[in-house]
Amino acid sequence: MAKIAMKFGGTSVADLDRIRHVAQLVKKERDRGNQVAVVVSAMAGETNKLVAWCSEIARPPGSNASALPDQREYDVIVASGEQVTAGLLAVALGAIGVPARSWMGWQVPIRTSATHGSARIEGVDGDLMNESLARGEVAVVAGFQGVAPHDRISTLGRGGSDTSAVAIAAGLKADRCDIYTDVDGVYTTDPRIVAKARRLERVSYEEMLELASLGAKVVQTRAAELAMLHRVSTRVLSTFDPDKGGTLICDEDDIVEKKPVTGIAYSRDEAKITLLKIPDRPGIAAAIFGPLADAGVNVDMIVQNVSEDGKRTDLTFTVTRGELARALAAIEHNADHIGYRELLQDATVAKVSIIGIGMRAHPGVAQTMFRTLSEKGINIQVISTSEIKVSVLIAEEYVELAVRALHSAYELDVA
Amino acid sequence: MAKIAMKFGGTSVADLDRIRHVAQLVKKERDRGNQVAVVVSAMAGETNKLVAWCSEIARPPGSNASALPDQREYDVIVASGEQVTAGLLAVALGAIGVPARSWMGWQVPIRTSATHGSARIEGVDGDLMNESLARGEVAVVAGFQGVAPHDRISTLGRGGSDTSAVAIAAGLKADRCDIYTDVDGVYTTDPRIVAKARRLERVSYEEMLELASLGAKVVQTRAAELAMLHRVSTRVLSTFDPDKGGTLICDEDDIVEKKPVTGIAYSRDEAKITLLKIPDRPGIAAAIFGPLADAGVNVDMIVQNVSEDGKRTDLTFTVTRGELARALAAIEHNADHIGYRELLQDATVAKVSIIGIGMRAHPGVAQTMFRTLSEKGINIQVISTSEIKVSVLIAEEYVELAVRALHSAYELDVA
Repeated sequence: MAKIAMKFGGTSVADLDRIRHVAQLVKKERDRGNQVAVVVSAMAGETNKLVAWCSEIARPPGSNASALPDQREYDVIVASGEQVTAGLLAVALGAIGVPARSWMGWQVPIRTSATHGSARIEGVDGDLMNESLARGEVAVVAGFQGVAPHDRISTLGRGGSDTSAVAIAAGLKADRCDIYTDVDGVYTTDPRIVAKARRLERVSYEEMLELASLGAKVVQTRAAELAMLHRVSTRVLSTFDPDKGGTLICDEDDIVEKKPVTGIAYSRDEAKITLLKIPDRPGIAAAIFGPLADAGVNVDMIVQNVSEDGKRTDLTFTVTRGELARALAAIEHNADHIGYRELLQDATVAKVSIIGIGMRAHPGVAQTMFRTLSEKGINIQVISTSEIKVSVLIAEEYVELAVRALHSAYELDVA
Repeated sequence: MAKIAMKFGGTSVADLDRIRHVAQLVKKERDRGNQVAVVVSAMAGETNKLVAWCSEIARPPGSNASALPDQREYDVIVASGEQVTAGLLAVALGAIGVPARSWMGWQVPIRTSATHGSARIEGVDGDLMNESLARGEVAVVAGFQGVAPHDRISTLGRGGSDTSAVAIAAGLKADRCDIYTDVDGVYTTDPRIVAKARRLERVSYEEMLELASLGAKVVQTRAAELAMLHRVSTRVLSTFDPDKGGTLICDEDDIVEKKPVTGIAYSRDEAKITLLKIPDRPGIAAAIFGPLADAGVNVDMIVQNVSEDGKRTDLTFTVTRGELARALAAIEHNADHIGYRELLQDATVAKVSIIGIGMRAHPGVAQTMFRTLSEKGINIQVISTSEIKVSVLIAEEYVELAVRALHSAYELDVA
């Protein structure tokens, strides 16, 4: 007997028929003799509706300006979507003879930080739920939500149900976490761009984390991080075609064939800021990035040119497009203290990354990337590397071309 | 400074504009220097939608038969409606500068029995909420819900938000509970039947309880009961015209003019069952009403004829129409044990009641009722009385005629 966590996203539970289909998948897993905890999202569209209500009612009367609602109340409103799905799935399971009960975040409890709207899971107490599983009940858990200090309802931010599922699997000490979604696994790259993209049978925790954080949308970054941290074997598979097998996210020791590059990710949500002729002195980085951190801006890639005269240099960094205006304001507000000559911005850039644990053992992997892009006439604006990935910033218009060329260069195309 | 509980039903919070209007009413109450707790229902239509989903998904696959969902999960699903309204009103209050926070039943906590779907409030712990009120926050409470043993979400049954409001008022030791609704108070009778019906300035707890349980729909029976039990001064007033004044439900000592009859209620939800020629022996009532109680049937009026020969008699009682089939089945199932000759049923009856605390001091009040109905040619089938009310069962087709005649006979018509 194994203990399995299953997760179904919004499109998988979009209406009552789909919820019934999910109930059948859960029953099948339980009929194999397994204990099952299911994590569900809100029915597709519900969260958007609730968020829209919330934004609209937050506007002061007579004003057209948008206003931020109290994030604690936002969480109360939005968390109701998963509550409904969890209850409905429990009823649907009952209708086919499977004993089941729903669990809200506060009932488990799934304890989170107090950063409402994007809370972090701090711990899952699996005791009560394990007792319920031992009684033969399926546990249906409302995803995306938890309980913050002082018993307030919290949510994990959009897409947080993946994270809920992995955290529940870890809290229950489950044998596996199956993430059912509308695609049938993790691909070598986005199949909408590269028709020859291949589904990966296995991918390591570390690679999945890089893929997710570098733009692959199939699993949430935070979920990949938790899976890695707690070594939760996680499968990604299709709700509508589960027998296809999906992708197993696992320990790299469990992966036999380690190609230099496993996958290629890209992100269009990039903007570049360049400060020209800043003083080349100690403390200049702190003068720039301190105010950005205070403004809540996440800086991604950074490159500083070598100073030609030892006095002035240029500095370039990237942020998400949504944070561009905030970043520019923070820089301009500190213009005197930083002392740049000119401030440039470019929101027509994109980031393309190659990821692979095999990279560590294969020298020259980055060189192949640079040569391939050069052959296509694509200029690299910024480079950033880690042990298992290389990312480059290029003009957005070249994204498809770059991804296709790299996919082929690293021999990832399906036979 | 006073402490006020306010309650707004589904039509009062039907959309975002109405929620904004409610926020203004709450602000006005708070601007008077009062501490305010607001109890809200789900937005009109939401509960029906959730209930329909719940019923549909409870049906076994391939079956058209209706099936009862697990009532605990029903509660999880349905309680989400009030959760959304409570969050939205808290945000709407924030938008006009009024600090507010939402409270779910489990957060207060509002402790209830485990009879999910129609739970009874067993206690409200007002401590946390009183601390919040003392900090100047408006408490926005999700009505209709509470927390049952083992931290399960419970609901009070349809219309339970009135009950929540009175229970919250009692738990907070509030000075007054204001129930805002779509009518402007409690009337001498249903104004749709009697155009000359008059709004009552005041009505006693006891009268309100009788009015509610005998068919007046303006306040829930259980809410009237709790108000009486905890002596909570309760006002019923219009959300859309609150300055009209409404009706105060209060102690009878606070009512100066005590007319013999305060109001006239009626109920069409009545069905009559008659057992002909049952043995006139000790224990026969138990033989009949025991099985009915076991079947969960609430018996209302009962009349047993005097036995003519000392051996056989007839017995008539009433139940709600929804319970008629269940009642008949229970009787037929015990036919041998009871020993009746014939079982008659009639679902075309109605109950008309006169209510008034003045009745105790005025003899002959019932006689006026019987005479008035007789003059109109209306046959009385069953009579039941208490200290402050007289109820009669008549053919349903005479309801309007009876109510109008009685309203006039007791001089309740507006001048």
